[in-house]
Amino acid sequence: MSYQTFAKRFAALNDLLNIANLLTWDFRVMMPPGGAETRGHQMATLMGMAQDMLMSDETLRVIGAAEDTVSGLSEGSVERRSVAHARAAVDLHRRIPPDLNRRRSALNLTGQGVWADSRARNDFATLRPVFEEHLAICRELAECIGYENHPHDAMISVYEPGADTASLGVLFAQLRAGLAPLVAEISAIAPPRTDFLHGDYPEDRQRSFARQIAEALGYDFRRGCLDTAPHPFEISQTREDVRITTRYHRNNIVSALQGTMHEVGHGLYEQNIDPDLTRGVLATDLLGLYGVGGISFGVHESQSRLWENQIGRSRGFWERHFGALHDLFPDTLSGVDAETFYRAYNCVRPGQIRVEADELTYDFHIMLRVEMERRLMDGSLRVADMPGAWADAMQHDLGLKVPDDRQGVLQDMQWSAGQFGIFCGYTIGNVLAAQIQGAAVAADPQIPFDLDLGDYARLRGWLTDNLYRHGRRYDRDETLHRITGQGMDAAPYIAYLTGKYREIYALG
Amino acid sequence: MSYQTFAKRFAALNDLLNIANLLTWDFRVMMPPGGAETRGHQMATLMGMAQDMLMSDETLRVIGAAEDTVSGLSEGSVERRSVAHARAAVDLHRRIPPDLNRRRSALNLTGQGVWADSRARNDFATLRPVFEEHLAICRELAECIGYENHPHDAMISVYEPGADTASLGVLFAQLRAGLAPLVAEISAIAPPRTDFLHGDYPEDRQRSFARQIAEALGYDFRRGCLDTAPHPFEISQTREDVRITTRYHRNNIVSALQGTMHEVGHGLYEQNIDPDLTRGVLATDLLGLYGVGGISFGVHESQSRLWENQIGRSRGFWERHFGALHDLFPDTLSGVDAETFYRAYNCVRPGQIRVEADELTYDFHIMLRVEMERRLMDGSLRVADMPGAWADAMQHDLGLKVPDDRQGVLQDMQWSAGQFGIFCGYTIGNVLAAQIQGAAVAADPQIPFDLDLGDYARLRGWLTDNLYRHGRRYDRDETLHRITGQGMDAAPYIAYLTGKYREIYALG
Repeated sequence: MSYQTFAKRFAALNDLLNIANLLTWDFRVMMPPGGAETRGHQMATLMGMAQDMLMSDETLRVIGAAEDTVSGLSEGSVERRSVAHARAAVDLHRRIPPDLNRRRSALNLTGQGVWADSRARNDFATLRPVFEEHLAICRELAECIGYENHPHDAMISVYEPGADTASLGVLFAQLRAGLAPLVAEISAIAPPRTDFLHGDYPEDRQRSFARQIAEALGYDFRRGCLDTAPHPFEISQTREDVRITTRYHRNNIVSALQGTMHEVGHGLYEQNIDPDLTRGVLATDLLGLYGVGGISFGVHESQSRLWENQIGRSRGFWERHFGALHDLFPDTLSGVDAETFYRAYNCVRPGQIRVEADELTYDFHIMLRVEMERRLMDGSLRVADMPGAWADAMQHDLGLKVPDDRQGVLQDMQWSAGQFGIFCGYTIGNVLAAQIQGAAVAADPQIPFDLDLGDYARLRGWLTDNLYRHGRRYDRDETLHRITGQGMDAAPYIAYLTGKYREIYALG
Repeated sequence: MSYQTFAKRFAALNDLLNIANLLTWDFRVMMPPGGAETRGHQMATLMGMAQDMLMSDETLRVIGAAEDTVSGLSEGSVERRSVAHARAAVDLHRRIPPDLNRRRSALNLTGQGVWADSRARNDFATLRPVFEEHLAICRELAECIGYENHPHDAMISVYEPGADTASLGVLFAQLRAGLAPLVAEISAIAPPRTDFLHGDYPEDRQRSFARQIAEALGYDFRRGCLDTAPHPFEISQTREDVRITTRYHRNNIVSALQGTMHEVGHGLYEQNIDPDLTRGVLATDLLGLYGVGGISFGVHESQSRLWENQIGRSRGFWERHFGALHDLFPDTLSGVDAETFYRAYNCVRPGQIRVEADELTYDFHIMLRVEMERRLMDGSLRVADMPGAWADAMQHDLGLKVPDDRQGVLQDMQWSAGQFGIFCGYTIGNVLAAQIQGAAVAADPQIPFDLDLGDYARLRGWLTDNLYRHGRRYDRDETLHRITGQGMDAAPYIAYLTGKYREIYALG
């Protein structure tokens, strides 16, 4: 009975957070520009009610009663995990003073406006005080959240429970050692032909191909839709309504494809959560503040990366789907075959912009940011010195000179929204994608054959059984141990990249 | 200080109701079908919180304190009207037992599903028990709301405060006397050519014309958007985000045009509410349950009718805009000129379907429904006898035989959603549109000249000053007296229709 009371209360909270997701989706996809101000009020009222509900004495009472009721169940049961997850969320929120939350929310919003403006004007000076205020707030927040070794650990724990600066340091060293020589070797070779990727691709046909690919990968349009947004994202209002977006540029087929497959990966995760968890604690981001999906940002990202890269950038995928693409754009792709397209789509070329980076250089962009975050958080790097530090890192890791701040420290939105700590999830996602994909193939050797036939159901089914359906029931390390029998390890990822790119570039 | 507390509390309530509007818009326009069930939970949670907030002791306390604070202000001030409006809403809601509300909401939702199914199968028997339960609930509701003479008066008052069965009886007699002979006279004449209205109209070009017309009439796309929905509607999330929809049928240009101009009329009302009322009581439907916009359903409808009919079906409008339509559809409209199009667009032809009815026969569809509602509410008509009563009325008023229930009693959704009492607003809207348009022209004789030039700003400005900007500040009869110096009167409407159609049909 008490567990039912608990479940009912958190189902209502889940409803509010899912409504907030719809407001966010609408804000980014559909809302007329004039609506921004009143939408801000609506969001603030809604999230205020959700916060009040989470933090109320009644919720504490309900959690307490539920803890008693479920104490006899096994530790890993959905019920015990749900109650424990709720308790942890309330405890964390109670450690953060309401005023700090309000300052953070307000600055997250205004900061993004300042960022857009300063980026447009290539003027870091305008953004500098925003970063400084964000960092001051993050340092306060870190003290509230708590940490053992480094204030950055607290911020990382918000997005990536279980990770910290020390473990990331080890991971990054492993990646640098494994990938830097390969990048250097490939950079010395003449790149493959890629001109046709930037030919004429009318939007309506890109749209039709994107939908076709999403359907082929198993994204369920009865419970989702593929819309357009300047920055692709996935957002869900329960597993029954999981929306994804991509963008279309007439002279760039890569952008829409990557956006689609990446968000399909996130979407498959959300659409395949166990129906029994719907409206439950384990399907909800109770930390709504931070916008962390799934078990951790990195675990969720592992699935967008897996479908975007391991599948969507594979030779088998393009052998299967290039024909349909060619049929839609016969002039633009005249004389191009699947293998040529595959090589172009996987061209390695160090560049300034993270979101345009190829698979092999992508993590260097992340390592640069995470290391900068760490130094900003402990004060060993001042905000004013960020452009210089950026330039040094780009020179060191990718051998590039940074032409201006727009292509440097101003390129990403995340920090202006206060998300110091979020970037590590992208690389963790890459690493986990290789581990999880490896585990899937080891468990069911039929998977690669099905993939080559363009049949994604077997892989999707395995991922559903072993990962998606559990929602937040198991934490990252538990999940990894259940799937792979071990903890996070960059070796499979490095092996995957090395094998793939040595073959493409004929490095023997 | 107390008024500020009051305003702040109702601003938050306004936020919740506007969020509910967004959920409704999304449900009808964007949501993937699988999302229906969890969206239902989300809506129920949100509306439950809004109800709890409205009905809470704290709200009563806040209203009481605000009443004291504003008692010294003039009776017509925004502040006093706001507090009085809030008090009336709370009083009404407190008279309705929560259990009755719950039963009503649940049946409203399931009833629409049963309706869709029974209409598809042309089977009234399936819907019959739903109507019977709805009527039982409506009779209970009427006793809670209270009435002097007839239980239907209570239901009418929900949608159309100030109207009742007696006053509608007088109005309908006036309309029948004025319009029935004209309909009979025109029905005896060979209709004008209308074939081209059902030619080939590709959707993308219809869309482009609809947008062009909406812009011309003054609908602000910075604070709105024109989307597609099977049943056109307007919905707002404050005046800063007012959305309209229409539908496109490839072989029917009329449907998209009427939908667009009708919803533009509603949209202009909402977009031009005084910005100072934003998030205030006078801009909010505090009776969210019933979905009544503006002062009354009829007053809001008067503006959709005014822009759809008085403007959008006028000769001047088509003299101005037919050229653009012809440019978009040169083949379909080959050999058709503005005058021919105007006559076709205003063709009078008695038919079975309300939403396809011309201006002259439309009100007969409404009178049939309102009279049936009255008899259902007082028990003098049984649900089982509705199809027969429908057939009798169609025969009597429009001389038509009803071929089946799908084209008769099953054609509208409203009753299946429990909206007994809503239909009268459509005819009240027609009547008021003529009165208000007449008052505008009397006050500013320049208006018709501007309209003929395709300049709608002067009329829109007058309507904004005299009607739109006030939101719910004045009730229907106050508004009418302020604008026209008198109460509701069908004479201007009858005169408008008589003059227009005698001319078109050369009745001398």
